Amino acid sequence: MVMREKPLGTPLFEGSVKLMLLGGGELGKEVVIEAQRMGIETIVVDRYENSPASQMAHRAYTTNMRDGNSLRALIHREKPDLIIPEVEAIDTDALKEVEEEGFTVMPGAETTRITMDRFLIRRLAAEGAKVPTSLYRFATNLEEAYEGCEAIGYPCLVKSRMSSGGLGSSVVKSKEDVREAYEISKKFARGKGDEVLVEGIIHFDLEVTELVLAHLDGEGKPTLTLLSPVGHVRSGGHYHVSWQPFVMQGIPFQGFGSNLHLLEDPPKGKLPWSSPWNGGTLSPANTRKVESRIYEVARKVVENLPNPKRGHKLGIFGCELFIKLGEKGEGMEAETHFEPKVYFNEVSPRPHDTGMVTLVTQDLSEMSLHVKAVLGLPIPSVKFLVPGASHVVLAQHEAWGPKYRNMEKVLGVEGVHVRIFGKPYSYHERRMGLVLSTDDEVNGARVKACRAAHLLEEGVIYE
Amino acid sequence: MVMREKPLGTPLFEGSVKLMLLGGGELGKEVVIEAQRMGIETIVVDRYENSPASQMAHRAYTTNMRDGNSLRALIHREKPDLIIPEVEAIDTDALKEVEEEGFTVMPGAETTRITMDRFLIRRLAAEGAKVPTSLYRFATNLEEAYEGCEAIGYPCLVKSRMSSGGLGSSVVKSKEDVREAYEISKKFARGKGDEVLVEGIIHFDLEVTELVLAHLDGEGKPTLTLLSPVGHVRSGGHYHVSWQPFVMQGIPFQGFGSNLHLLEDPPKGKLPWSSPWNGGTLSPANTRKVESRIYEVARKVVENLPNPKRGHKLGIFGCELFIKLGEKGEGMEAETHFEPKVYFNEVSPRPHDTGMVTLVTQDLSEMSLHVKAVLGLPIPSVKFLVPGASHVVLAQHEAWGPKYRNMEKVLGVEGVHVRIFGKPYSYHERRMGLVLSTDDEVNGARVKACRAAHLLEEGVIYE
Repeated sequence: MVMREKPLGTPLFEGSVKLMLLGGGELGKEVVIEAQRMGIETIVVDRYENSPASQMAHRAYTTNMRDGNSLRALIHREKPDLIIPEVEAIDTDALKEVEEEGFTVMPGAETTRITMDRFLIRRLAAEGAKVPTSLYRFATNLEEAYEGCEAIGYPCLVKSRMSSGGLGSSVVKSKEDVREAYEISKKFARGKGDEVLVEGIIHFDLEVTELVLAHLDGEGKPTLTLLSPVGHVRSGGHYHVSWQPFVMQGIPFQGFGSNLHLLEDPPKGKLPWSSPWNGGTLSPANTRKVESRIYEVARKVVENLPNPKRGHKLGIFGCELFIKLGEKGEGMEAETHFEPKVYFNEVSPRPHDTGMVTLVTQDLSEMSLHVKAVLGLPIPSVKFLVPGASHVVLAQHEAWGPKYRNMEKVLGVEGVHVRIFGKPYSYHERRMGLVLSTDDEVNGARVKACRAAHLLEEGVIYE
Repeated sequence: MVMREKPLGTPLFEGSVKLMLLGGGELGKEVVIEAQRMGIETIVVDRYENSPASQMAHRAYTTNMRDGNSLRALIHREKPDLIIPEVEAIDTDALKEVEEEGFTVMPGAETTRITMDRFLIRRLAAEGAKVPTSLYRFATNLEEAYEGCEAIGYPCLVKSRMSSGGLGSSVVKSKEDVREAYEISKKFARGKGDEVLVEGIIHFDLEVTELVLAHLDGEGKPTLTLLSPVGHVRSGGHYHVSWQPFVMQGIPFQGFGSNLHLLEDPPKGKLPWSSPWNGGTLSPANTRKVESRIYEVARKVVENLPNPKRGHKLGIFGCELFIKLGEKGEGMEAETHFEPKVYFNEVSPRPHDTGMVTLVTQDLSEMSLHVKAVLGLPIPSVKFLVPGASHVVLAQHEAWGPKYRNMEKVLGVEGVHVRIFGKPYSYHERRMGLVLSTDDEVNGARVKACRAAHLLEEGVIYE
């Protein structure tokens, strides 16, 4: 609601609208760009110097954001109009306190806390939103972990209640593995390290991120728009490739909501991912069934997230969803019994890694939408422009100030765009850049992005 | 050629690719954004602190760039890989010297000098490129100014040889006006103030900016691509509204060159500007004649600009052109005798104000194209996405740190985007922001941009 309460000032002057970003990675860099384009004063906080976003911001601070005292002191010092968490490694108790004092955290301190806690978010999805999730059990000690694994059955997963990325997660194949998995979870845990989640494994066929935009309409009323789903593939638990629109059986999924500007001529495309259904003849009606469940599950989860202390939750939410088309060997023969299932996995209360593809596919990227939404500005439409894909550029080695060759080769391919994040330090598998691509059809875009990203990766010099 | 000679490093580390921008205005801000997205280290120089571009750059310096000693010292201190002039108020002798020493100025010190000198650029266009220009005479004293005006005939124009924007230009209606016009030219002149240009007035019907992209193709060979012309209207000599594509008789002008991705379905549109031809029936063949002359005139001028000391001239060139459809009252009756004429007016050796519309109409904006081109990176295609328009947001008064209301009203209109440049100081008619808009057809985009810009202008608080 910021923009309804005060006019937009001039950066670095009394009366400016100040946005403090907690975390300064590659998503934050694009958030800073979009904020600066609107004349917002930008402040970036991260645990290291010269993070990507801080290189473009008005001011930057380096501190451990899990240190609540430092974080609170910084917020008191800067008095930002808006605080946006961009990473999970933040003391959410401090966020709650400053929210109590009157500061605006978007989409809210409590939502930030819930979405980084595997137990709380799963309970909210399964019991609050009542959407399909994996089976799960909560355990606070080794004995309960044993009980949980036995109840869920093998193989299952043991995960830290809170951790970064996929760290602290193990597959448990039998009773003998439980102790080791529990110890690993404790090792990588944030917060109370004893607490773990035992989870059933979903043998899904496809994976999408549904970007849900919580925003104000032209009349200032809060509303949700469900953007065109983003297909994605992980490697080692991390996002590796994403594309938009998500296409099944030649039907592109176009999103759902009153402010979507739909594609008039849907781009051509094929089933983008190997599955039991590849080459099958899923009917248009059943394909639409998959699509509508994506919107339903994502909408319900976001609706169930709490509002901040004052006002409404606003911004982009990236809902990770699993799609299971049917049991293996069963569906093809009997499509009349086809019951696709869409499971909720996780949600980011902010732009999602996989959604970086929207930098080339939409007229407003997820970061641009996030900035407008959290400021309380209206977003009357989102327009899809062209099919596109993204592919991460990962480092192979540790190095300070790596160098990137092959830019001239990669950019010689039509529709290929590159982002080099400018991170000062690389280590094995750290995401250092991104390839974005467009094409007449989404598979073409994926092939181009994949080739370009690998060519870039091969060209990096580590010294 | 920078990127062919060294790999792209990490910003702020030894081996980074450094880009120094001389001038930090709104165009420079978008140049910095595009450079930072590619991992380039950015340095902005301007005459005042906290210019729009400097707020997003790695480092900023404040100095008068007409002071050659200061400029040279700064270049020696920073040792940028690439120097890009973004304004005209630069000591071009200093640029020539550093170019001699081995620094890369794009598109070259000599081109920078010629294009800011009304006499040199007119001579290059008329005598070198042999394209239509206004009649002109060069005068170094009052007596020669009298002679020039008499030779050209009244009314005519007297302009400073070098000045900022439209300053120092007067209409001379008769012999009695010459002395005053000459004195005004001297007052606003840069460089040798005695020298003025006397110019014939062209009663043109339409005005366009043809953005010419000088770049390397996939094989590293220099080539020119002529982008879809940008229509524009001035107010008081300054750009006020622009739109793309430029449409005549329902035919959108699509640009010319091997790397253009043409619109498959040309957007609908009408003759966008009042002229003797409004509502007339200019044939498709004659409309295409106007279009082809636009490309011919712009191409010839850019081809005739000199190359820098080493390598080829690279980057965006904004050619301002006048279109005269035919003598008044003559064409409608006799279209068989129709001879449209396209006159050269000026050229910017950098992104052009009117070309900011490409931020919403193309997959690569003119600033993004400029950054890639000057680095020597290949640009295999430019894709037009959607018809759009831009309209300036001008200040009414002097104020430090003005405040902007009405953002929530303006952004409530579908397809409207806003840029607030964040300039610390406003004065009468200073450009403080921009409205960009898209629509199914270009006239709709113009109407939206115009309304939104005026609503924003009305909302500014000067304190």
